[in-house]
Amino acid sequence: MNDKQFTIGVDFGSDSVRAVLVDCADGRMIASASCRYPRWQAGKYCDMSIARFRQHPLDYLESMTSVIRQVLAGNDASAVKGIGIDTTGSTPCAVDRNGVPLALDKRFADDPDAMFILWKDHTAIAEAEEILQKARESEIDYTCYEGGRYSPEWFWAKYLHILRHNPAVREVCAGFIEHCDWIPAELTASPVRTGRCAAGHKAMWHADWQGYPPESFFTSVDPLFRGRVDLLDQRTYTADQPVGKLSAKWAEILGLTTGVVVAGGVLDCHSGAVGAGIRAGQLVKVVGTSTCEIAVAPAVERCIPGICGQVDGSVLPGMTGLEAGQAAFGDIYSWFIRFLGYAGEVDFKKLEADAARQTPGCVLALDWFNGRRTPFANPFLSGAIFGLKLGSSVPMVYRGLIEATAFGAKRIVDHFVKEGFPVNSILAVGGIPKKSPLVMQICADVLNMEIQIAETDECCALGGAIFAAVASGVFANVAEASAVMAAKTGKSYIPDKAASEVYAGLYQKYLACADAVEELVNRQLIP
Amino acid sequence: MNDKQFTIGVDFGSDSVRAVLVDCADGRMIASASCRYPRWQAGKYCDMSIARFRQHPLDYLESMTSVIRQVLAGNDASAVKGIGIDTTGSTPCAVDRNGVPLALDKRFADDPDAMFILWKDHTAIAEAEEILQKARESEIDYTCYEGGRYSPEWFWAKYLHILRHNPAVREVCAGFIEHCDWIPAELTASPVRTGRCAAGHKAMWHADWQGYPPESFFTSVDPLFRGRVDLLDQRTYTADQPVGKLSAKWAEILGLTTGVVVAGGVLDCHSGAVGAGIRAGQLVKVVGTSTCEIAVAPAVERCIPGICGQVDGSVLPGMTGLEAGQAAFGDIYSWFIRFLGYAGEVDFKKLEADAARQTPGCVLALDWFNGRRTPFANPFLSGAIFGLKLGSSVPMVYRGLIEATAFGAKRIVDHFVKEGFPVNSILAVGGIPKKSPLVMQICADVLNMEIQIAETDECCALGGAIFAAVASGVFANVAEASAVMAAKTGKSYIPDKAASEVYAGLYQKYLACADAVEELVNRQLIP
Repeated sequence: MNDKQFTIGVDFGSDSVRAVLVDCADGRMIASASCRYPRWQAGKYCDMSIARFRQHPLDYLESMTSVIRQVLAGNDASAVKGIGIDTTGSTPCAVDRNGVPLALDKRFADDPDAMFILWKDHTAIAEAEEILQKARESEIDYTCYEGGRYSPEWFWAKYLHILRHNPAVREVCAGFIEHCDWIPAELTASPVRTGRCAAGHKAMWHADWQGYPPESFFTSVDPLFRGRVDLLDQRTYTADQPVGKLSAKWAEILGLTTGVVVAGGVLDCHSGAVGAGIRAGQLVKVVGTSTCEIAVAPAVERCIPGICGQVDGSVLPGMTGLEAGQAAFGDIYSWFIRFLGYAGEVDFKKLEADAARQTPGCVLALDWFNGRRTPFANPFLSGAIFGLKLGSSVPMVYRGLIEATAFGAKRIVDHFVKEGFPVNSILAVGGIPKKSPLVMQICADVLNMEIQIAETDECCALGGAIFAAVASGVFANVAEASAVMAAKTGKSYIPDKAASEVYAGLYQKYLACADAVEELVNRQLIP
Repeated sequence: MNDKQFTIGVDFGSDSVRAVLVDCADGRMIASASCRYPRWQAGKYCDMSIARFRQHPLDYLESMTSVIRQVLAGNDASAVKGIGIDTTGSTPCAVDRNGVPLALDKRFADDPDAMFILWKDHTAIAEAEEILQKARESEIDYTCYEGGRYSPEWFWAKYLHILRHNPAVREVCAGFIEHCDWIPAELTASPVRTGRCAAGHKAMWHADWQGYPPESFFTSVDPLFRGRVDLLDQRTYTADQPVGKLSAKWAEILGLTTGVVVAGGVLDCHSGAVGAGIRAGQLVKVVGTSTCEIAVAPAVERCIPGICGQVDGSVLPGMTGLEAGQAAFGDIYSWFIRFLGYAGEVDFKKLEADAARQTPGCVLALDWFNGRRTPFANPFLSGAIFGLKLGSSVPMVYRGLIEATAFGAKRIVDHFVKEGFPVNSILAVGGIPKKSPLVMQICADVLNMEIQIAETDECCALGGAIFAAVASGVFANVAEASAVMAAKTGKSYIPDKAASEVYAGLYQKYLACADAVEELVNRQLIP
């Protein structure tokens, strides 16, 4: 007999899946494993020239099987109480009337339109624009809880794109489901239960209109939606609720029992915030190529302008999850390294050291290399560098780019505060917080706030494990589970007083330059 | 007996001197030679950290001797009728009461303050600012024919700086003279005759106030000027007028006769315009690290705002010479190559070829990396790059920088036109026009005007030879000499109609971005 209680968190990223096996007694990570998606890695089903990014459902199932088996190897599988899932999103797929992705049907096995459409797929630009247009004309602006826009990366745009462009798929397609909703349904052989997080953030689901916008709204965009909306289950579920228990088939495949509970699926950043132990008044920054910033607040009734989304229960049940972000962060540093690569390979360590020695504000840059996400998303904005002189050096410009990303981060914090959500502490998770002390110190100086770094890299998967611990009854609720299991904080960056004063002045300049560029872009005066 | 008529043009550049031996019958260049200044090349008397750039008078005399002897070697020295001189400027030197540079006195042989202060020396920043301030407070704005500013690179600022900072030099200093005025005086053992070009452009000499500003103006800046201004010869001379004939000493040193006439000295770009055969309605662009743009027009009475200077007879006697320019041109390309050099060496040929394949306007840049010279000089402006995206590549940015320099060139042409000086044709001389077809084609497309390129690299020295031909009586005036001797045009760049249309739109964007940045700089919002 053993009284150990483990849960498994499974984090489906853009390129690979990770699993962690966690001890519910203390949140200790007993094992972790990751596996790249094999077909994806081989470049299948994608066409970068048109930003078509598709992932085969078998990539998910095979790699998930592998990582779960890996974390169980040598550990006590009988102690596993639950599994929690997080995925990228909006990453939806056309399914048949049984909720099975069409690519699992022989007829569609190689049809990219029958696969999951990865979040960064941009084939549905036209459809997104049409949906947004109709929302703006509509009596109710159904995008108002998603920052007042509708992205080509989101659910309904992708759904419509497939309906329009692939008649064969359209004929058998009985619906569209998010990656994070499909995995729990597949593992439990249950009917799909729609997760609140993805539906609220990406599919215009909201309690104000008792579910999705009505079918009439969608058919006003395109009659192809007829018969595809009103029949949907209009309920959504938070991730702490069980979807079901492992099916016999999956119990056998994974080496687990049919007693294992599978929690609801959730989007990765929201899971990461839970893994980081988010609480009201805290901003959790998931910092990587781009950033996702998550806050939670007691039920928010009004519509908050300029953020990416607000969804009740998307992070913590009973609270409103608020999402914001920077469209490019580490991507800007990578761009610069790639740019310099034209001349030769850059010694990154040396570049960071050289940049660290520069005075703040040698040049002033804008961090909009991939447009702006928050506040007030505007994909047409672009990056800029000001103050270039004949003596401007690579380390000066690199530091200017780092400062620009920090200024962009401060603008988000300021926006939350301005909208009535005080930010009392900041916790950063993700690759960059662990890797670049220079970036994090500049962020702390610019924000003039301490930034704590989560000790683990696996906050997203850990969030899944926490949800699993609640869904399987190990804990009564997420707050209790989180208190025990959430990531410990490791290193902390304390703002330097003198630097913060300098940056306070530079930030005002950043804002002025940003306003000037935004006006130029809005007047179509920047290419 | 021989009826050949030759003249020699001597062009003192920043680093070296060149001489050309020219046949007055057809302007054919019989020989040319160049020589670097030996002490300068060894880095003597300079301190880059404070932008102190000094040149020893012996550097000039020794290298001039060398190049004149070289061009005479194997040629008929008895055919030489005259010598014409051009130099950089304002490059003045403290002299004793005989007009001899103090550094030629043993006591001051190694004192940088007793040497020529090269144009780009910036030690007199404070003095320039004080002079400008007084000019603005004065009833007459003595800077109005010099674009309404007074640069640290100019005559009186440098003079005052030496008076203030070197009491030993101050005690024996009887005056200050420009490099271009000293060489003719030295060669002829004549009293100094002040050239119109340098005095008008750099020393606030103007017929409106019958010479230099009054001594009371200068003593209001600093009493150290007392007794140093009103005693000056207030007359100036155009470069077609003889200063005298070679002294016996110099005739012997150079291997010439004492019958050789020495013409008045002139600043290099103005000499270059004459060498290029400038005529009214034509803009001569001297394009190198920066640009100097020269036009001539029948006597201009009014003060033209926003250009660098307007001086009667500075280029062609009887006409007003108008000077404008870009503070950085080739320097911007060099900056970019140096910038990329952080990562590795750049294959410049490949970069140019890659840039040539880019679409116009991938990014939009401002060419103010060294401030702006024309229109409306503003040294506080800086460069900027707009429209940066994660896909922005090195060739895109490089092309954007080239386009920025071309837009800056168009702005100058537009300014001349707006001020009532039509630009009917453009002739480019200097290093870049010969070396970079891509740059010149983009300039032609942006300007939507044909750009002719002078066949020779030696327009400046050729201008000296033309002045010498007039001063020595071979021709009656510069127009006649120029008709025979001026540079032939070589390659010509014809604007591409489609490209010109695209650039017309981009130029409007450049102007809008430029205005926005200028406002930000004026509000001190750009570092």
